[in-house]
Amino acid sequence: MAIALTRDDPANLDAADPLACHRDDFDLPDGIIYLDGNSLGAMPRAVRSRLAQVLDREWGQGLIRSWSGPTGWMSLPATVGDGIAGLIGAEAGEVIATDSTSVNLFKLLAAALQLNPGRRAILTEAANFPTDLYIAQGVAAWMGDGARVKTVARQDLAGAIDRDTAVVTLTQVDYRTAELFDMAAINRAARSQGALTLWDLSHSAGAEPVDLNGTGADLAIGCGYKFLNGGPSAPAYLYVARRHQAQFSQPLQGWLGHEAPFIFEADYRPAPGIARGLCGTPPLLAMATLEEGVATVTAAGMAALRAKSTALTSCLIELAARQCRGLALASPRDPARRGAQVSFRHANAARIMDALIARGVIGDFRKPDILRFGLAPLYTRFVDLWDAVAVLADVVARAGQGNSVKPDGTT
Amino acid sequence: MAIALTRDDPANLDAADPLACHRDDFDLPDGIIYLDGNSLGAMPRAVRSRLAQVLDREWGQGLIRSWSGPTGWMSLPATVGDGIAGLIGAEAGEVIATDSTSVNLFKLLAAALQLNPGRRAILTEAANFPTDLYIAQGVAAWMGDGARVKTVARQDLAGAIDRDTAVVTLTQVDYRTAELFDMAAINRAARSQGALTLWDLSHSAGAEPVDLNGTGADLAIGCGYKFLNGGPSAPAYLYVARRHQAQFSQPLQGWLGHEAPFIFEADYRPAPGIARGLCGTPPLLAMATLEEGVATVTAAGMAALRAKSTALTSCLIELAARQCRGLALASPRDPARRGAQVSFRHANAARIMDALIARGVIGDFRKPDILRFGLAPLYTRFVDLWDAVAVLADVVARAGQGNSVKPDGTT
Repeated sequence: MAIALTRDDPANLDAADPLACHRDDFDLPDGIIYLDGNSLGAMPRAVRSRLAQVLDREWGQGLIRSWSGPTGWMSLPATVGDGIAGLIGAEAGEVIATDSTSVNLFKLLAAALQLNPGRRAILTEAANFPTDLYIAQGVAAWMGDGARVKTVARQDLAGAIDRDTAVVTLTQVDYRTAELFDMAAINRAARSQGALTLWDLSHSAGAEPVDLNGTGADLAIGCGYKFLNGGPSAPAYLYVARRHQAQFSQPLQGWLGHEAPFIFEADYRPAPGIARGLCGTPPLLAMATLEEGVATVTAAGMAALRAKSTALTSCLIELAARQCRGLALASPRDPARRGAQVSFRHANAARIMDALIARGVIGDFRKPDILRFGLAPLYTRFVDLWDAVAVLADVVARAGQGNSVKPDGTT
Repeated sequence: MAIALTRDDPANLDAADPLACHRDDFDLPDGIIYLDGNSLGAMPRAVRSRLAQVLDREWGQGLIRSWSGPTGWMSLPATVGDGIAGLIGAEAGEVIATDSTSVNLFKLLAAALQLNPGRRAILTEAANFPTDLYIAQGVAAWMGDGARVKTVARQDLAGAIDRDTAVVTLTQVDYRTAELFDMAAINRAARSQGALTLWDLSHSAGAEPVDLNGTGADLAIGCGYKFLNGGPSAPAYLYVARRHQAQFSQPLQGWLGHEAPFIFEADYRPAPGIARGLCGTPPLLAMATLEEGVATVTAAGMAALRAKSTALTSCLIELAARQCRGLALASPRDPARRGAQVSFRHANAARIMDALIARGVIGDFRKPDILRFGLAPLYTRFVDLWDAVAVLADVVARAGQGNSVKPDGTT
């Protein structure tokens, strides 16, 4: 893609793309270029028949009987968790699908404080995804015992880990810039100080290979509705490295995390293994939908997805650099440091994104000045980028340089 | 139903039943008598077309755009919450649909300890639904500050409320026996000692009228998949009386409970009102399904539903008393003290329920010796009870008196 002079160039890339056929696995609207799979993944076509089966056969006809049995609903959180494990460098039995990302973060931050007793600091970066900061603040404020959140700038992180750090919690891919943390390096730095790590994989799982076990991660969480294509109900998931599972406990100790939920005994006894990360009754329609989403990613394979997403993000950066004057690249230029997303800064970013969406190019705006394009490698084509940049160039040219942007995003 | 000598008697009751037409709103399997709507409600037919719309139009075509706007996905937790409010004696703005029952109980127990500072006891009955006990134990163990769970027998409850009681938490309808607590009396007793009340409405909402505001309740939670017919993914809900909302805070402070989630600021500021009970991104397919379930209950009206469920439970008790020797009624004989469920004890209950299910009569077994029949008034007919009791009488006669039952349910 060093020279792209005509639309034939990206079209040729699509023709040679081994993942091109996977686009047909999704429902995508006509007349729209969808570059927001990092916010909400597209709908796998298989969801329609799967949900018809869940509604008609399992709920409608099977009713309460559908919970039990070896392939019953009750087994799905573990089955779906195992499927996700295969995408993030974990083993079967280390991941379970449950609750929301924020709820799971609460569980695991509390668990980390207990796994690392005597240490009170939750270390994170100041620019972490807000809900991660809010949840950490909640854990610190409510768990007592002097727990506190310590936030530092990204570049100061490794040096800020000390003997009071119970856990370092980070989002692997920055939601604004797509910059990737070096998971292995952070895990090493944490380990050398006796701190645990807790990774939020919401913007990475399903988009790039993650190697939790290979890099020595301790804990992780992530959402199901972005690159895992689990839909707007998708449960999230949590990972606890096997070496911690026997000591692992968490405060949301509901009946599904009990060793024997249907014995109905009065005292909580945690289930063996990762199941103690569960709390209430699992959401089944949503779990089945997520299973179909995870299957789309598994079918393509993470290595192929990463190769394509790198090519896509490089292509978009190059096309925009040539055709759009006034956009500043906000993502790393080095593809090894970049997730499946490209972001640009512009003083009129909010207005530009409104105009793009009105013309059928869907990305999103993030305060104060960021245009964000998620390039889900399963269903994004190279010609989509060509066509999107043609619109973007026109919209940016009309937007002018704009006024300076205020911190609240207004101009 | 004082005399029921032939199947015509219940058939006549069905013919005169003003709610009979509502059965057509549900998908029910042929050849099955479903008496387990207290575990999983039947599927409203409207769910099929609603989910088709959510999949095809909202997710498939609308994609990320479906979150926003006045009728967008983001508004559903409040809209569905308002719908539930109308069924439980709450006002719009006092209920929000979110997370699971267990997660919501965790939030509100923690909130109650903070709303009632200086008091440390969570008072409940020893026979409360197990997940409610487990969650209370989790809150006490993890929230620190000396919080503790105090469990007493049902009959000792009112007398056990004292000046150290922060909150009395109870399930309104006992899941084993269907015995109803007198909500007004408990609320009064709690108030007189300065304690708050937190009601679990999982087995009552949608089955009998609940009057949270009229009886002066403080907090409540409940699930969506039983009598609300929200399906096996249904989110739960939580209620905070308006007088507590300004002081209310809870530890699972995720971004959706923030005053301005899309400002993406670094510090948590709780949203005004009930929205601060939210945590992570709401599950949309599941929320839309629950909205259809709640609509089935609203359409029938709680007074009519209660009248019918009382008639149904009385009918089942009478038929079983006449035809089934060896069953002991485990539910209150006084219909005013009974939810929409009838339970019997028998030493061979587990084997009897297996046999019933094999013959198409679906109730459930609860350890150690309980046969449980939930009589959802929206879709249960009087002839269903006649037919079910015919099978039950035969199965019980074959089961004999059985051996004495051990505490683990084996014989």
